[in-house]
Order: sequence, then structure tokens, then C-alpha cells
Amino acid sequence: MPEIILSINAGSSSVKISVYKANESSNPVQLAEAVIEGLTAPPATLKYERGDEKIKGRELENMNSQEDAFRFILDHLTQDKGLPELSKKEDIHFTCHRVVHGGDYPRSQVIDEDTYHHIEALSDLAPLHNGPALTIVKAVSTLLPHATNIAYFDSSFHATMPSHIRTYPIDPAVAQKNKLRKYGFHGISYSFIVHAVSGHLKKPLNQLNIIALHLGSGASACCILNGQSHDTTMGLTPLAGLPGATRSGSIDPSLMFHFTHSAGQPSRSSSAHLHITQAEEILNKQSGWKSLTGTTNFGDISEKAECGDEVCKLAFDIFVDRIVNYVAPYFVKLNGEVDALVFAGGIGERGAVLRREVVDGVKCLGFELDREKNEKPGEGVVVDVSGKGSRYKTLVVKTDEQLEMARGVLEERERFSENE
Amino acid sequence: MPEIILSINAGSSSVKISVYKANESSNPVQLAEAVIEGLTAPPATLKYERGDEKIKGRELENMNSQEDAFRFILDHLTQDKGLPELSKKEDIHFTCHRVVHGGDYPRSQVIDEDTYHHIEALSDLAPLHNGPALTIVKAVSTLLPHATNIAYFDSSFHATMPSHIRTYPIDPAVAQKNKLRKYGFHGISYSFIVHAVSGHLKKPLNQLNIIALHLGSGASACCILNGQSHDTTMGLTPLAGLPGATRSGSIDPSLMFHFTHSAGQPSRSSSAHLHITQAEEILNKQSGWKSLTGTTNFGDISEKAECGDEVCKLAFDIFVDRIVNYVAPYFVKLNGEVDALVFAGGIGERGAVLRREVVDGVKCLGFELDREKNEKPGEGVVVDVSGKGSRYKTLVVKTDEQLEMARGVLEERERFSENE
Repeated sequence: MPEIILSINAGSSSVKISVYKANESSNPVQLAEAVIEGLTAPPATLKYERGDEKIKGRELENMNSQEDAFRFILDHLTQDKGLPELSKKEDIHFTCHRVVHGGDYPRSQVIDEDTYHHIEALSDLAPLHNGPALTIVKAVSTLLPHATNIAYFDSSFHATMPSHIRTYPIDPAVAQKNKLRKYGFHGISYSFIVHAVSGHLKKPLNQLNIIALHLGSGASACCILNGQSHDTTMGLTPLAGLPGATRSGSIDPSLMFHFTHSAGQPSRSSSAHLHITQAEEILNKQSGWKSLTGTTNFGDISEKAECGDEVCKLAFDIFVDRIVNYVAPYFVKLNGEVDALVFAGGIGERGAVLRREVVDGVKCLGFELDREKNEKPGEGVVVDVSGKGSRYKTLVVKTDEQLEMARGVLEERERFSENE
Repeated sequence: MPEIILSINAGSSSVKISVYKANESSNPVQLAEAVIEGLTAPPATLKYERGDEKIKGRELENMNSQEDAFRFILDHLTQDKGLPELSKKEDIHFTCHRVVHGGDYPRSQVIDEDTYHHIEALSDLAPLHNGPALTIVKAVSTLLPHATNIAYFDSSFHATMPSHIRTYPIDPAVAQKNKLRKYGFHGISYSFIVHAVSGHLKKPLNQLNIIALHLGSGASACCILNGQSHDTTMGLTPLAGLPGATRSGSIDPSLMFHFTHSAGQPSRSSSAHLHITQAEEILNKQSGWKSLTGTTNFGDISEKAECGDEVCKLAFDIFVDRIVNYVAPYFVKLNGEVDALVFAGGIGERGAVLRREVVDGVKCLGFELDREKNEKPGEGVVVDVSGKGSRYKTLVVKTDEQLEMARGVLEERERFSENE
């Protein structure tokens, strides 16, 4: 039987699991994908795809935690007759876990007791983000004792940032003690993008210069020099940089103390283990374009903005402005030697109007879109939407963090086996 | 007798007063300048210049407040036999006060009771900054009842920023109630720069596109489109944007909650009237390049960095990196139609190495220095230090906020007289 890899992405209210078969080559083949959403807003629903077999929006009862969701999906997978490669739990050799904050880890890690506790300790830096993954890791190690569990960190890709970029100009003693520096996130996606663009352009990865935009409900940009992260917009936490659906992005660091007198008090999401201030709760969960427009759906905002809705136009223009604020400096940090400006993530893939406005905002640097291609980029993993006269390429990349993790397993199987 | 104008700039520990004579034309003529420093670190010292008459470092006793300093300087000026134009208090027709935070005021204001209370209310937004000016205004209106007192705001120049740039993506109801938006500062300096560059380039002010850098112990950048502020780096308060001598500049907005658990608690500088959190105190007063290197003197840091001192090199590189992060987007916001990149402020004027590194950082945009001119720009108010092959001009401007305020008085004398 082939080895089975599960790529697991646990959010605060959802669990997504992709099932891959290990291939002779280094490309894993996806067999199935299951998503349970709405854990915090019951009823939770199941989405399942395996070949032509599709389930969508099936309501599930008594599904209240990431662990419940994982158990359900595991049963569903092993009982699916159309998935003979995974008929019992022991068929699963590897599980990959997307973990947001990896602190100083420069690459993925097999999760043993030490690693687990280290990741747990990092939750102090990312209380809103690392929790769900840890819950799943715990469940998985109980349910799948034979599998090798590997943590993939969103921060690892940025371990290459030079010190003058990752250092904050604050008291260095406190910074060192409390691990306060720029980490950056969305690194699994940026790793996928680098591999995909390298293949598309047939250019070695270590010669690739990219301005990459991962634009979804969380949004960031990355300056990729010779295939490595040189700068990125997120910081100590995912809050810094670009705004998101419910996230403010960078604002005056003193703003929160003028927003509420209880900025530093614990929020309602805090628990004995997790310390989350009201400020962090407000800036991560109650800001961004939802706070301006009432919706997290940027597609709706973009459409209404085009029709003249002033509030949506303001939210749209803010996002474009802040993106341009990073594309331009990343262009000069690459000394104008740019292989591609890449749009990825839900909004990056589907936001044709946003792409148009961002590229228009930096047209004096030599970027130009093909209007038709931009409006209908089609289905490829990497699609070139540049105009004929454009000095630089603009690409739309369908990033796939689940696949990137599974691919990492096959590439580094030897390293992971040492731990077994 | 000619009318006398005093331009007053009160900092937390110093008072600077420049004396001007109103001219037939709109150019005030400077007669004398007095500075008292060290109010919070006695003994305070006096610096005085009138023509060839120079006093430097004279120690003063019992000089503990901005009011003490103002009284002393006023006596000194009226008793100076070499200054017959100002022999009694009644010779002073106008006093100009630099006020950091002007809220929504789009231009300078004659200070009457209403204005005074409004500026006082704004101190909530800028408790660390508006206090000293208010102390002086109070003293001046008692001591010089016949003079017209005018407040010049560092924020007014930025009143022209479009809404998508000045709006933060946060709850708009709270933002409106608490007046939370990007204001921007250093506006008196930017106003001087626009006038000076317009004269130098013989180009009408309203057609002038400038990327302006005011770099001193407080540092900011401004994107000037058609002579008006289009974007700037400082925000709700002067904390946002570039780092300074003791200021962090923009950092992850959640950082302070990981720096200290008492981020939101009142700092020792707080009083019944002024609410300053520990976070604001730390980020404004205990961060920046002093926290990294131990000195506020950027010239020393720059020199040591050149000699290979690693800590100073890090602080230097951080400043260059953050400056480039703003020069590049301002370039694209001006659509590449840039009349000049301007360096001003103490570091902007004297930091030849900094200018070299910043311009080198954006050379792919078409900026280039003349190495010799950059090293010795000489004495002019506006000096062109661009290289021969440079597509865009780089200028060093000796900004003069005191003169800019006095010039404003003469230009708008009619408006100010309406209030008399």
C-alpha cells in the first residue's frame, strides 16, 4: 500500500484535511479533501471531495471542537469505500500541521514532546493563532500513534530576513528576553509560490526575485530575493502590515490607548493559559474592512465600490493604498530586478479589480496588465496576466498550502525519519 | 517703529525664540535668536545671537519652567541695547507658537479663549507634545496682552491628505468619537520646504511634486503632490512611521502587550490632566536608536557604523531601511513625476553618509548623488547634491520653522487682524 499523508489546517472555527498518496517522484497526489466549518457557530457543516464524489454543506451534530472535527473526518475517510488507500488509521504515515507561529524554528519540525511544549510556549506570542493547531496535534498523537506528526510554521520561510529588517528599534534587552522581533507569516504559501513560479519561469529557485502578495482575509506581502524572504509585512504577530477582513494592519502603535482605556486589560477570549488583551482582540477581530463595511467578503466590497458605494470605495481604496505601500519598497529592495509580481490567496486569485488597481498604482515602475487575461485568468496554477508592453511580469498563483506541506514531507523524508 | 514678531518653539526641556522685524515685502528679517536648554536637567543654559553678539552656554539659575525661560528671554531682549527695535514689550505685535497637534485645524489660528481650550482638549491626543506650547501661550498672553498670539500647527499642512490615506481600518464610530485618524506632523517644516524648493526650482508651488524627508531626533517623510501633502509617515501621533532618537516608529501594534503587562497603565509622566500610558512613554522616550546604541547622536552612530561598530551599523541600517520603505511608495504615488527628493532636519542636513545610503537604496528609481557635493553641500538654504546622470534631483534644504511661522504672519496679516 502507498504511504498516506494528511495535511491538516486548523483555524479557530474550522478544520481542513487533505489526503495525499506518496508518489515515486516528489509530487504527492491528492486523493481527497474534507473541510468542517462553523465549529464556533453551530451547526458545523462538512464539505468533502474525492474524485467525482462531492458532499457540500452537510450539517453535523455535536461537533464543537477541533478534536471532534478531526475524529469525524478520520472516520469518514477510513469508511469511504472509494478510498481504498486509506481503509484503516495505520495507513497514515505522516500528518502535517500548519502552525502559525514557529518562533525561531527555521524549518518544519517533527513533533515530539519537546517540540510540542516549545510550540505551546510560543502561543504567548500568538495566543489567537497557535491554539487551534495545538488542539489538533494533541488529538492526532493520541489517535494516530504510528504516524509521524510534522509541524509546518508560517514563520519559517522568513528566517532568512536580515537583522536590520527583523529588528525593532526598541530596548534590545527586553526584545531578546521576550523574543520581540519581526517574524512574518504566510510562509507556507510563499514557499509554494516560489516553487510554482520557479517551475513556470524555468528559472532556478535561488535566482528568483519576486514581490509576492498573499491576499485573503489575512493579507501580507513578501519581498523574495534569490528565492528567500528578504522582507515581509507581518511582524511579531500577523497583525502588522496590511489590513485584513477583521484586522487593522499597521496603525499608530499608540492608537489603541486612545481607542479604549482598557486596551491592556484581558479580553473575553482570554483564559488561564491564553493572555489576550482587549487591544489585540479589537485589532485582530473587530477591525479591518468588516469594521468599515459590515462584511468580510472583499468581493462584495469590490463590486459595490465599482458601483459607487462610498463606504465600500473607501475600504477598497485603503487596501489598494496599503498594498502599494509595500510593493514599491520591495521593488527597490530587489533593485528593480524583479521576475514577477505575484497575486495569490483568495482575493489575489479572484480580485480582478483589485489587481487592476494595484498594478495601475505601480505602473510607473513598469508593470502593466493584459486587461482580458486579468479578468479571466482561467484555471492554471500559475497564470501570466501581464500586458504585452509590460517591463515586468504579473502572475496569478493558485497557492496550495496543504500540497506544499505534503511535498515537504516527501522532499525531506530522510530528515523526518531520523526522529522516528 | 517696525512691527516685531516673535517665533516661539517650546519643547519639553527647551524654549527657542527668534525675533523678526516685519518688512515691507513678505520676508521677515531676523534680528536675534535666543535658546534656553536644559529646563528639566539643570543648570539651564542660554544661547543668544544678535548679529556679531554671541552668548553660548551661559548657565542660568532658578530656571525650571517654560514660563521662567520665556520671562528671562523677554527681559534679555528688551534690555539688549543692540536691539533698539525691541526696547519694550509693547513693540511685539505678533507671537507665533509652534503647536504639535492641531487636530482638524487646517491652518494657523489666532489664539483666543476658545482656541486655547480647543488646543488644550487636543492634548489628550498628544499629551507628550502639546503641553509645553500651552504653558508658553498662557505665559505670553499674560505678559504680552497687546500682542496677537498665533498657533501654528505641525499637523495643518497634512489637512489635504485624501480620506483613504488618513483613515485607519478600525471601528469608524470609535474613530469619529475619539478623533482617531492619521494627522501627520512636521508640517511647518514641510511648508518651508515647499516654499524654498519652489523658489529654487522657479516652479509654481502648486505644480511641485516632492518626496520630503525631515530627519532629526524626530523623523518623518512626506509625499507632496502639487504642493500639498498627499501622504506622510506620522499618524494619529508623532510615534508612527520612522524611528527617531528615542521613538520606535511603526512596530507591530500588538508588540507593547508582549513588552510589558502594564502597557496600558499610567506612566510616571502622567498627571491629573495628562494621561500617558507606559506603552506611550516607552515607545516615545525609551526606544529608537538611543535604546539600541546608548546615544541620541545620530552623527556619532553614523561615524561608528562606518568604522565597523556592529551595534551602530544595525541602528544605522534600520534607519536607512525604514526611510527607503517610504521613499519608494511616495515615488509611485507621484507617478514617478518627482521634482526633488529633499533631505532636511538636523540629520538630513548633516548626514552625508545617511543621504548616500538612502539615495543608493533607491538608485533603481533614477536617483544619484554627486559624491563631492553630497559630502560638502555648503551653506545655501537649498543645495542641489544630485549627480550629473541623475534622472531626479536630490536637494538638501535648511528648513527653518521659526522663519516659516513669521513669514506666515506677514502673508496672512489681514486674516489675523480680523480677530483683533
